Amino acid sequence: MRLRNKPWAREKIEAHPQYIVPNPEGHAGNWQEVFNNNNPLYIEVGTGKGQFVTEMAKAHPDINFIGVELYESVIISALDRLIEADLPNVKLLNVDARNLGQYFAKGDVSRVYLNFSDPWPKNRHEKRRLTYRTFLKLYEDIMPDGSEIHFKTDNQGLFEFSLRSFSEYGMLLTFVSLDLHSSDFKGNIMTEYEEKFSAKGQRIYRAEAKYR
Amino acid sequence: MRLRNKPWAREKIEAHPQYIVPNPEGHAGNWQEVFNNNNPLYIEVGTGKGQFVTEMAKAHPDINFIGVELYESVIISALDRLIEADLPNVKLLNVDARNLGQYFAKGDVSRVYLNFSDPWPKNRHEKRRLTYRTFLKLYEDIMPDGSEIHFKTDNQGLFEFSLRSFSEYGMLLTFVSLDLHSSDFKGNIMTEYEEKFSAKGQRIYRAEAKYR
Repeated sequence: MRLRNKPWAREKIEAHPQYIVPNPEGHAGNWQEVFNNNNPLYIEVGTGKGQFVTEMAKAHPDINFIGVELYESVIISALDRLIEADLPNVKLLNVDARNLGQYFAKGDVSRVYLNFSDPWPKNRHEKRRLTYRTFLKLYEDIMPDGSEIHFKTDNQGLFEFSLRSFSEYGMLLTFVSLDLHSSDFKGNIMTEYEEKFSAKGQRIYRAEAKYR
Repeated sequence: MRLRNKPWAREKIEAHPQYIVPNPEGHAGNWQEVFNNNNPLYIEVGTGKGQFVTEMAKAHPDINFIGVELYESVIISALDRLIEADLPNVKLLNVDARNLGQYFAKGDVSRVYLNFSDPWPKNRHEKRRLTYRTFLKLYEDIMPDGSEIHFKTDNQGLFEFSLRSFSEYGMLLTFVSLDLHSSDFKGNIMTEYEEKFSAKGQRIYRAEAKYR
């Protein structure tokens, strides 16, 4: 996504601590306090403009959701959506995914969603892909054993890479669809990007991979 | 493939023991004798009309190849191709893949190829798919540890199933292409079916899965 510099973004983020959690490192091992309940916590890494995480929160009121987004200029769109929806079970984190281990303790997160992550198509950038083994280790370290990653993309190369990466990491593929929108999969919630690209006839790939 | 009954097929098969090996159970543990060398043996399960196995044998003279095909009415087309090519390193077996363990001992086969296998699309037929776990066990039992299955299909459902099945069996996905003919994969040898369907714009899926 093209990023515009928005100098007022930081101020807006800080003005809404009830939606974009400040000082998240203080909550590691203790996210129940933030949501005032003991429901499972699912996170989306790279949440973009927040449609997926907001709609998931509406559809699943017994699950807590956190959207993680690095870019200030993008997360403010997600913030607008959260302000509008005003749901108790969804928050945002304006942090770098590489530091997830600073904000979540082992078992804090029950599922990780990755949707239309940057494909980083050049081989020399493969370490930046959110399904690279170092990221799979990060997610493993914040979830209970046997948890799952749910992954969608329209990028063929990223999907091929990710299937191999899940496999090499020793994960179990429990779901694979090579054309999600033509399948009988129920309950799909689309991202903004997914709506746009599937309308152009682009195939959407989806996998679930489980840590063993 | 539509099968026509050809009553003369059996007679033709028996007239060419140098190409379609009779009494293969007698060679278990001892296939070097059949080929008069110690080269590795690769087999294609469901060889159909034999284009793949014959062209592979031409391209790889230091490998022995066996095409396994159950249907007499189909294997005689592969036989014609072998007679025409007259290569020392390719043979056929007119047997049921479910009985592979009767014809090959552990380690006899160094690689298994599966190309455009019958997709058996109904769930109640999944046990007949050549990537179902009972078949993965059959192949494992005739290959050295750490061997690979190389699999191609144009059938989306069979490919999705097979990726899950390889994963559930504990195999490692070392190669995945979701559009083989648009990829930079080198050395692809097409089957008759692959030529026909890829010409219609059908995607070809390919995977390599390794036993651990």
